[in-house]
Amino acid sequence: MNKYSRNQRVTGITKVLTENPNKTINLKTFTELFNAAKSTISEDIVIVRETLNELSMGRIETVAGAAGGVKYICGVSKQESRIFADEICKILIQKDRVIPGNFIYMTDIMYNPEIVHKAGVILASAFSELDIDYVVTVETKGIPLAYEVAKMLGVQLVIVRHDPKVTEGSTVSINYASGSSNRIQTMSLSRKSIKKGSKCVFIDDFMKAGGTAIGIINLLKEFESELLGIGVLVDNIESGHKLVEEYISIIQFTGINNEGIAELTPSEIFEKV
Amino acid sequence: MNKYSRNQRVTGITKVLTENPNKTINLKTFTELFNAAKSTISEDIVIVRETLNELSMGRIETVAGAAGGVKYICGVSKQESRIFADEICKILIQKDRVIPGNFIYMTDIMYNPEIVHKAGVILASAFSELDIDYVVTVETKGIPLAYEVAKMLGVQLVIVRHDPKVTEGSTVSINYASGSSNRIQTMSLSRKSIKKGSKCVFIDDFMKAGGTAIGIINLLKEFESELLGIGVLVDNIESGHKLVEEYISIIQFTGINNEGIAELTPSEIFEKV
Repeated sequence: MNKYSRNQRVTGITKVLTENPNKTINLKTFTELFNAAKSTISEDIVIVRETLNELSMGRIETVAGAAGGVKYICGVSKQESRIFADEICKILIQKDRVIPGNFIYMTDIMYNPEIVHKAGVILASAFSELDIDYVVTVETKGIPLAYEVAKMLGVQLVIVRHDPKVTEGSTVSINYASGSSNRIQTMSLSRKSIKKGSKCVFIDDFMKAGGTAIGIINLLKEFESELLGIGVLVDNIESGHKLVEEYISIIQFTGINNEGIAELTPSEIFEKV
Repeated sequence: MNKYSRNQRVTGITKVLTENPNKTINLKTFTELFNAAKSTISEDIVIVRETLNELSMGRIETVAGAAGGVKYICGVSKQESRIFADEICKILIQKDRVIPGNFIYMTDIMYNPEIVHKAGVILASAFSELDIDYVVTVETKGIPLAYEVAKMLGVQLVIVRHDPKVTEGSTVSINYASGSSNRIQTMSLSRKSIKKGSKCVFIDDFMKAGGTAIGIINLLKEFESELLGIGVLVDNIESGHKLVEEYISIIQFTGINNEGIAELTPSEIFEKV
């Protein structure tokens, strides 16, 4: 069996831990992978932990007990988050992004893995203390972002649909009013997708008045489950009218100005940088 | 400025490279991050490269030239892929997954980040030599998997919708016949989402006759673009009738047997293990 050097072991440990965020990895996984003693692996993990701390690249936590081990919790410095928010504002402010109806075209942003990954880490970091069971989103544009947050938090993603599908078995449907236009819409979710008594976080690409978030809260009640947090990439604060109080966003949108350009700024959570 | 040890540098380099699959990272990024000479960083990278090779955890490639550097290409051993395929079969074979209409409930699988990540690595590895521009999928169930493949290949994700949305600007819509039921459906895609002359891979959760894949090929023609590959998690080979010839899958589904249990096996690509 191969023997690995410390350099090689920390390489492998870093890869396995960071690819499995918020999942407890037993030290046995590493003692077997590297054919090394537990004490050796423990020393390796100290190195990985200290390095990630120093580089503000997340942290390694120890989980005690029989099912214990170590797990990686994602993280990013305030400074890097701020730089990211500024960059996204710069991209979205481009004049040709304003489309008929005064919407901003941001589909490409929401489907860009590099951007979605960074946004996902920022939002997941805000919820990493909550001990949630599911990340919930509504189809379609917020799915990649919600997926990244679910992955970073080590939990299952749940996608609420506008129409029930035959391939999902029996579903629960509710009606909700979009807060901005008061149009009645339907959202439905497979009975099998959420266990009773679960704690959830709702992730979406864009929030206007928050009608969708209210819909999610009501839908979760049908599953005797609870919404503990809301996170969006862009918060539209143009009207000022919000149906939900607590949520976090990365960017704020205040409307299209007289020159036909979108006005965007990083959200308050970055102000202290 | 901090000085970092070799152990610390390989930890940081591993994290940055594996978190940015198929993206060329200039050595300057690392010389600045660690305040180290280029020759030192090059030696660190050799260690990371050799370790990932030895552990079958992907590979590190050198990109020459002014815009050069190193990049991480995801990879997984045939043995691990086979173990993964077997595990998914075991999960999907559970009797309570058969739902009215003889569908298998697999939504939870498609929205489980741990599973989707592994499946994404397997499919992306099969396409890593193709030099593609976009990973394309059709909403909704295949989105997380397509997102992972796009991320691993370092390209943009494109999501084709069933109805055009006002927030996506002008769209191109085509009609297509689902190969199994011959029902006519519509797919539409924002004009802005694909550049002319692009090369794409289509990723989906499930393939029956392949009517959707044919639809994607025709839709891409409207963008003067080309489909170079197709990858799905589950291939339904019950009827044997396929509209497309070349595609890869991880699992094959041959129908529900007389005892009401789904019959599933790992696909041929794993047979040589």
